[in-house]
Amino acid sequence: MYINKSIQQIAQDAAMAARKLARITEIEKNKALLRMAEGLERNSAMLLTENSKDVVNAKKSGISKAMLDRLTLKQSTIEQMAKGLREVAALPDPIGKVISMWRRPNGLMVGKMRIPLGVIGIIYESRPNVTVDAAALCLKSGNAVILRGGSESIKSNLAIASVLQKVLRETSIPVNAIQVIPVTDREAVSEMLQMEEHIDLIIPRGGEELIRAVVAQSKIPVIKHYKGVCHVFVDASANMEMAVDICLNAKTQRPGVCNALETLLVHKDVAGKFLPLVANKLKKAGVVIRGCEKTKLILKKIEKAAEADWYAEYLDLILAVKVVEDIDAAIAHIEKYGSLHTESIITDDYANSQRFLNEVNSSTVVVNASTRFSDGFELGLGAEIGISTTKLHAFGPMGLEELTTTKFIIYGNGQVRT
Amino acid sequence: MYINKSIQQIAQDAAMAARKLARITEIEKNKALLRMAEGLERNSAMLLTENSKDVVNAKKSGISKAMLDRLTLKQSTIEQMAKGLREVAALPDPIGKVISMWRRPNGLMVGKMRIPLGVIGIIYESRPNVTVDAAALCLKSGNAVILRGGSESIKSNLAIASVLQKVLRETSIPVNAIQVIPVTDREAVSEMLQMEEHIDLIIPRGGEELIRAVVAQSKIPVIKHYKGVCHVFVDASANMEMAVDICLNAKTQRPGVCNALETLLVHKDVAGKFLPLVANKLKKAGVVIRGCEKTKLILKKIEKAAEADWYAEYLDLILAVKVVEDIDAAIAHIEKYGSLHTESIITDDYANSQRFLNEVNSSTVVVNASTRFSDGFELGLGAEIGISTTKLHAFGPMGLEELTTTKFIIYGNGQVRT
Repeated sequence: MYINKSIQQIAQDAAMAARKLARITEIEKNKALLRMAEGLERNSAMLLTENSKDVVNAKKSGISKAMLDRLTLKQSTIEQMAKGLREVAALPDPIGKVISMWRRPNGLMVGKMRIPLGVIGIIYESRPNVTVDAAALCLKSGNAVILRGGSESIKSNLAIASVLQKVLRETSIPVNAIQVIPVTDREAVSEMLQMEEHIDLIIPRGGEELIRAVVAQSKIPVIKHYKGVCHVFVDASANMEMAVDICLNAKTQRPGVCNALETLLVHKDVAGKFLPLVANKLKKAGVVIRGCEKTKLILKKIEKAAEADWYAEYLDLILAVKVVEDIDAAIAHIEKYGSLHTESIITDDYANSQRFLNEVNSSTVVVNASTRFSDGFELGLGAEIGISTTKLHAFGPMGLEELTTTKFIIYGNGQVRT
Repeated sequence: MYINKSIQQIAQDAAMAARKLARITEIEKNKALLRMAEGLERNSAMLLTENSKDVVNAKKSGISKAMLDRLTLKQSTIEQMAKGLREVAALPDPIGKVISMWRRPNGLMVGKMRIPLGVIGIIYESRPNVTVDAAALCLKSGNAVILRGGSESIKSNLAIASVLQKVLRETSIPVNAIQVIPVTDREAVSEMLQMEEHIDLIIPRGGEELIRAVVAQSKIPVIKHYKGVCHVFVDASANMEMAVDICLNAKTQRPGVCNALETLLVHKDVAGKFLPLVANKLKKAGVVIRGCEKTKLILKKIEKAAEADWYAEYLDLILAVKVVEDIDAAIAHIEKYGSLHTESIITDDYANSQRFLNEVNSSTVVVNASTRFSDGFELGLGAEIGISTTKLHAFGPMGLEELTTTKFIIYGNGQVRT
């Protein structure tokens, strides 16, 4: 009962804060963000101490090395977080922007103005930097945020929140604009996901399992991204050198992320020439290839791909490779096995570039560049709160604008409807 | 089991159709819409016959007169439906529109292109005209549609669908782009709402009860609109004549719709003058007033408003009236009791007009005009598929663009990420 009450109160307080926050000027929001950056820097000793307690507990419970890396704060991480806050302060405020306005025949002026969504709940793993990052983006876009990080990072997150809230107390921004759920019970998340009256949007950030669990329980709309099975299609007319560079970059520059290449499709007319070229470089980079029968005929000493490989998000130095008949077969493969994330065609053929761009309806469709550009910063959104692979509200990398909605504003001079 | 299979098949077929439909040109879609208009006109005798069977059954089961009116087709209704199809054909196609495009420092050209959502499920009451209307808007926006009207209209809906599908068979558009669920069992709706893999969006159109039932069951995102508790705030500086005209129009021009006025807020400084003026006209129009204590002191012979009246969507000739201290009290009342639908301020004060427009975050905010303009046609969207009072994806009246999403398109020339 305590948790129930507590989470309900957090959600109500957030909703109250959101109403006030919607009216706060950009100048005030930026001032708060810059002071938060200073606050983190000034309190770095305290933050490192609290974080080290989390790290000790996490080691005891035996979490993986990768998770421990993400959990551990260093002086440099704190500097990065402060830098991130300053970058968000420098971004344009989306709120109040009138994205279009037109006059109706009866003289009414009708416009669409960006407003905050209200209250956003962020559910994420034990990564204290996400606490700062998400809080900053929500604040800048006028949304109150409820943060729920992984239980291993609870002390770090509460320490960070105390610094951010201390800054808010010195401004006109309500302190409940940024709240961290102070308990680690799973029940708390379940409660939170029922608060549809107070929370407008849930963004889960983490693995597929976490996201599926959130979706299954939530009464609140969820913007989700299950996985990224990204494709590169090397067309018959592709510049071979460019194709090799892009495949290598897309697969190996950072294999553990969602916009990394997972399945390579190669036009049959160039498979004999292209596959040995790319396989040679991939092998040097430590990539294991799992190929279709035709690929095996060309590359010989590789593993055979099973049906499951075409659905796989390896997040690792493994690549599925398939030789396809033509662009139609490539598009059909992407439609069947893809995850609506990011697909790239490498081609020198004008018509095929246009067909790929128009016919593939993944959230990001690329011609002659790496899938790794599917990222809020790389696309010029200035920030990234997540990547959506469902089509409602936002599709693809989400920046500040995707944390807003629009209302209609109407200027009249006495019009009535006849 | 039969239903389970059947609904699943309908959803799968719709998803297949949606992929093809996304690539159909505007010319082909318009040709189909115009032929559908002819088809309805040519088959009007058959449509009226099938509809009359529905009407006979509905009378036996004793549905209300209002529902019977909505169910009954006449020659003129069929002409209206055909006209509606021609109007949708004349609207610009939103698909393929690049809403913005920019160059990144590395030379990548990045754009956002409108694409269909995919498959849309529409759940509505026994109104055969909605079958045509919704099918047309979904087709034009490149979405496959699954239509589920009230059980009383099943024969009418199947007859309409047969006409529309016959046209599709003569075009390159897949026939499963428009499907009517052929059974009236409630189970069928429940099944449909679980098909999140195939259906992208559910739009329920009807009363609050229907919408709540859909939301409670659906695994698919729902764009919803529970109710419209619309407010007019008559400020101290309001032009009295304009204020009377707007209140009368907003309350009485069509009291049964969601953008009709339900609560009138009056600034205390003009209540003594304004309330008798407007009450006189409202009374002549048959409106019953339920007022706060201060209103009762001025108007005397009216009913006293209870707390529930401030939350009420009467959809009838009843009006709640409250005298408020100032614009802050008006905005606070709207925040507490409003439904995020439509609010209007009547004022000659510049600062208050701006405050109201900026601080009230309902889906439509109006200065000096009737709330009745909150409508897709009146706002110039060209069509209306519904009105959303939740903020995700769409907020306010929804036209064709709200049935789309955007994908990122990237033109590169070999860029890789460093």
